[in-house]
Amino acid sequence: MAQWFYEDQTEYTRIGMQVRELLHEERTPYQTIKIFDTVEYGRILVLDDVIQVTQHDEFVYHEMLTHVPLHTISNPEAVLVVGGGDGGMVREVSKHDTIKRVVLAEIDEAVIRRSIEFLPSISCALQDNPKLEICVGDAVDYVRKSVEEFDLIIVDSSDPVGIGEGLFSKDFYRNVYKALKPGGMVSVQGESPWLHRPLVKRICNDLKSIFPIGKMYCGNIPTYPSGVMAFPIGSKDADPAVPLRPALPGLKYYSSEIHKSAFVLPLHLQPEQMEDAEVNFFASWETLNRIKENETI
Amino acid sequence: MAQWFYEDQTEYTRIGMQVRELLHEERTPYQTIKIFDTVEYGRILVLDDVIQVTQHDEFVYHEMLTHVPLHTISNPEAVLVVGGGDGGMVREVSKHDTIKRVVLAEIDEAVIRRSIEFLPSISCALQDNPKLEICVGDAVDYVRKSVEEFDLIIVDSSDPVGIGEGLFSKDFYRNVYKALKPGGMVSVQGESPWLHRPLVKRICNDLKSIFPIGKMYCGNIPTYPSGVMAFPIGSKDADPAVPLRPALPGLKYYSSEIHKSAFVLPLHLQPEQMEDAEVNFFASWETLNRIKENETI
Repeated sequence: MAQWFYEDQTEYTRIGMQVRELLHEERTPYQTIKIFDTVEYGRILVLDDVIQVTQHDEFVYHEMLTHVPLHTISNPEAVLVVGGGDGGMVREVSKHDTIKRVVLAEIDEAVIRRSIEFLPSISCALQDNPKLEICVGDAVDYVRKSVEEFDLIIVDSSDPVGIGEGLFSKDFYRNVYKALKPGGMVSVQGESPWLHRPLVKRICNDLKSIFPIGKMYCGNIPTYPSGVMAFPIGSKDADPAVPLRPALPGLKYYSSEIHKSAFVLPLHLQPEQMEDAEVNFFASWETLNRIKENETI
Repeated sequence: MAQWFYEDQTEYTRIGMQVRELLHEERTPYQTIKIFDTVEYGRILVLDDVIQVTQHDEFVYHEMLTHVPLHTISNPEAVLVVGGGDGGMVREVSKHDTIKRVVLAEIDEAVIRRSIEFLPSISCALQDNPKLEICVGDAVDYVRKSVEEFDLIIVDSSDPVGIGEGLFSKDFYRNVYKALKPGGMVSVQGESPWLHRPLVKRICNDLKSIFPIGKMYCGNIPTYPSGVMAFPIGSKDADPAVPLRPALPGLKYYSSEIHKSAFVLPLHLQPEQMEDAEVNFFASWETLNRIKENETI
């Protein structure tokens, strides 16, 4: 009898994957970590029953959150990765020769340790990386204390419930702005533009109210809800939709053409239609609205 | 206790939707039709346990398979929809003023009848449509007998197992070529470029070997496997990536910008990487290869 792992992507929608083996399970002070070996997507990292990365499609997520801003900032030298304990963002950021310093601010040390142990293709740049500083602790605090220190901040958070919640607040984005150098950018894991639209709209609007330039682009990641993820981006100066340099060689998703086309949003995701609650209404929006009413952020 | 509908998207991957009600179930001479009312995606049409359309995301599929070719052909007048008994393609095609004739070749009359009964927002153009001819029968035969009759043939088939199988063969595409007028095009439901890659490659290669121009574009449809669908397209003359006219007003996904960017494929889907079986290998490819070896088409 085959074993299956199911994730409730919303209250009403699920994804299921056939599992070869549960490789690891651990309750940390912050969350429950599970690492499965699945038949279709390879090894997957699951935090509090939500898929964070899979071996077979993680490259889209990591390439798009890093290389879009890094090909647009004139001379990126210092990058802060918020969350991202699996190391995928550090791996991609470290491919850029201009980078001198990468800080990883991850609250849960066990995520880093278990990713090194079980997900070597993702975590490979977490060890023997002279550019890397690992800060185990609350990224909200870390960002609050930083002033004009980074060219890029990547918000590689889990969902806005539990420990990830503070990483979706307007106060946090204000501190991100302050922590960025002139010309800096922030790129954000922005959930599904179909199923989490009220949240996506809020992130975009918050960024636009704080940064001179706020935009959104998308990427196709099969194991995230709706198969597409929104990446809100805030910029102090340059237009993040326009790459300044040829694409790094050896990537699997990102190219200069993909960079530009990722900002071309279908009509139903354009700001004017995003404001219209009647367009493609999903039942899970109600759930999100309930979360919003109860939230303290 | 909530009811759930599950689709096996591959042998190893499932999607689940919470169901309010099974509205209809019927065994026809060709397949089993089920129509559910789901909480998240509205009403869904399921043939032999595979989701064909959902009320909430069908617009992407139907707009992209029709409006991309119809904005590229100089004066489209006659269109053949192969399959497509739910009426979504007919609805979109009928929006173009130049269209004088739409033929719907659907093998299973019950799909048409039940779509009219249960899916009115999709099937609305199947009734009182003076441009429409409905031919209940085998589209393979219909196409074989047609010579330079259509400006566009849309292959809106189910999956390449059972009754849909003949619609994926090279012989069929040869007959499609013959059935198209000079300047004509064919657009094809091409499955998932992640999970069904051997099949997608075969369709693209077959079209390229028959048509002067063969390309592929994509669209984001949450309820199809991997959240993205490949649309292979063959053209006798014009470049299908270049729209000739401003976009029709009132659409929900398609715009001139989306038209162009839909042809910008991420690196892992570009032909040279598609040929490399080592790039993003999925276990379900093996299953597809087994099907391929046993196939008679």
